[in-house]
Amino acid sequence: MSNQIKVGIVGYGNLGRGTVEAIKQCPDMELVAIFTRRTPDSVSVNESNVQVLHISDAEKYKDEIDVMILCGGSATDLPDQGPYFARMFNTIDSYDTHAKIPEYFSVVDNAAKESGKTSIISVGWDPGLFSLNRLMAEAILPNGENYTFWGKGLSQGHSDAIRRVEGVVGGVQYTVPITEAVEKVKSGENPELTTAEKHQRICYVVAEEGYDKAKIEHDILTMPNYFADYHTEVNFITAEELKANHSQLPHGGFVIRGGKTGDNHKQIIEFSLNLESNPEFTSSVLVAYARAAYRLNKEGQAGAKTVYDVAPGYLSPKSAEELRRDLL
Amino acid sequence: MSNQIKVGIVGYGNLGRGTVEAIKQCPDMELVAIFTRRTPDSVSVNESNVQVLHISDAEKYKDEIDVMILCGGSATDLPDQGPYFARMFNTIDSYDTHAKIPEYFSVVDNAAKESGKTSIISVGWDPGLFSLNRLMAEAILPNGENYTFWGKGLSQGHSDAIRRVEGVVGGVQYTVPITEAVEKVKSGENPELTTAEKHQRICYVVAEEGYDKAKIEHDILTMPNYFADYHTEVNFITAEELKANHSQLPHGGFVIRGGKTGDNHKQIIEFSLNLESNPEFTSSVLVAYARAAYRLNKEGQAGAKTVYDVAPGYLSPKSAEELRRDLL
Repeated sequence: MSNQIKVGIVGYGNLGRGTVEAIKQCPDMELVAIFTRRTPDSVSVNESNVQVLHISDAEKYKDEIDVMILCGGSATDLPDQGPYFARMFNTIDSYDTHAKIPEYFSVVDNAAKESGKTSIISVGWDPGLFSLNRLMAEAILPNGENYTFWGKGLSQGHSDAIRRVEGVVGGVQYTVPITEAVEKVKSGENPELTTAEKHQRICYVVAEEGYDKAKIEHDILTMPNYFADYHTEVNFITAEELKANHSQLPHGGFVIRGGKTGDNHKQIIEFSLNLESNPEFTSSVLVAYARAAYRLNKEGQAGAKTVYDVAPGYLSPKSAEELRRDLL
Repeated sequence: MSNQIKVGIVGYGNLGRGTVEAIKQCPDMELVAIFTRRTPDSVSVNESNVQVLHISDAEKYKDEIDVMILCGGSATDLPDQGPYFARMFNTIDSYDTHAKIPEYFSVVDNAAKESGKTSIISVGWDPGLFSLNRLMAEAILPNGENYTFWGKGLSQGHSDAIRRVEGVVGGVQYTVPITEAVEKVKSGENPELTTAEKHQRICYVVAEEGYDKAKIEHDILTMPNYFADYHTEVNFITAEELKANHSQLPHGGFVIRGGKTGDNHKQIIEFSLNLESNPEFTSSVLVAYARAAYRLNKEGQAGAKTVYDVAPGYLSPKSAEELRRDLL
């Protein structure tokens, strides 16, 4: 199909791989190339017909790629790559350093406005779909409270923290919403809850042979920021169990707003995700917003955007008429 | 505040009353007047400072009202009122006759384009928020299925049907999702389910004294379209119980999409509502979209729109900067 949207991917980690998969489910899109900082030959892609190129070759594809999906991380990749690619392409990224979003938005906005491109930043599920639901629920029920719960899901940062503990050879951490807190929120009571009161942390740890497990457990439970303030549970397992039962990347969570209308009527809005693969789901959101970026740019809407600026109809391959007829 | 959005309401039933309440929660809005087809003096409004006017006076308020919220019904009110008011005002309505939406959209679109006004049609929760979630979930997970469940909630149409049965002096009907169907869908199995397989109908009926209850039950259970194809339960109660326990208008429901990504990973997206007052919640949605209609019109976006055409940021009284900083 000659009128497919031509997509490029920058970065080939979990998110990049998920993006390749997500594009395969979209008949209106075509993957042109994956760009990497590694030696392209060293990157093996499952798909036989996908070309892998060095990131320095991207600018040669200015006229051949409609949207570039940036699959790098927020800490070190996107602060440079976001504005760099916005100078040449419509872009999508999943920038998620909440505190620096205004600054990042402004840098990407300047770059995109100069090039006349459209860049949708901070796309995914949080920030992303959860942000959308926080906004809409608050706008609809001004008299109320928002609650965000994460999990049950594997937290990469906390898993890394466990693996840095002396005597630990492997491990993962799941963030799990605390049932009582969830029930309170769903009842419309609008309780005051800290992050620690909403979530517990369940760790599965492989200890070095002969190492004192009690010491490992103590070191984890008392680790500041990561575990000390939380209800944390440490379970020791074998390396085989770790591999067999904990090598997937499930995640999810929910945004709930409890509000009141009229004569004190309780109204509850909830949005929830239950994901067997966190990176594949995030990629699927990026790809739907890539469609939106392409269309917004066709309409001349240049600059940086967030999910708040994108009318939902732009995400669907269906026409406005079809959507009104079939889905409204 | 002189820069408040000036709102008018057409129709003062449950939805109109809910809209008065919802506007009170929005400091950026001001209710100018309620327009009714009844004799204005016969309409009593709780708020002392709200003026009630005859609907024929509405056109005199062309320059004093920014958005008119149409609170009439889809069967007979909106087909006339939608295009009539779109010729003079930005409008919001909750038109919900699914099969006729394309036709209604086109009539309102013509009227609004002629007047340069903006009309957002079919706003509420279904159509409305549920439609949004069906669209977004489908765009994100193309390989999957959407499921819409309604309830637990009081169905006005089915309650009316019960009350038309001989020997019945009062009654209500609740639509209730069938737990097994919900569980199947949430597990990601993507079963095939008819509306009847997803919902049961629970009736509370007050019988005329001395009337044969078995006959009433039979007449309800065998009523075509409404009950015959469903798992229906009939409970007889007293008039006092009906009044004490069944005079609220709760509702809710959920939209679930089960999809698969990559190597067969199950991904579940769910949006759910649990509402103590259906009309008050619907009104709250109408009022948030009234803000959007006003802003879209300021930007020159005339014509008919649906929730699919409205970027979520327009619903919030907060600025784009605040939203990015505080909610993203």
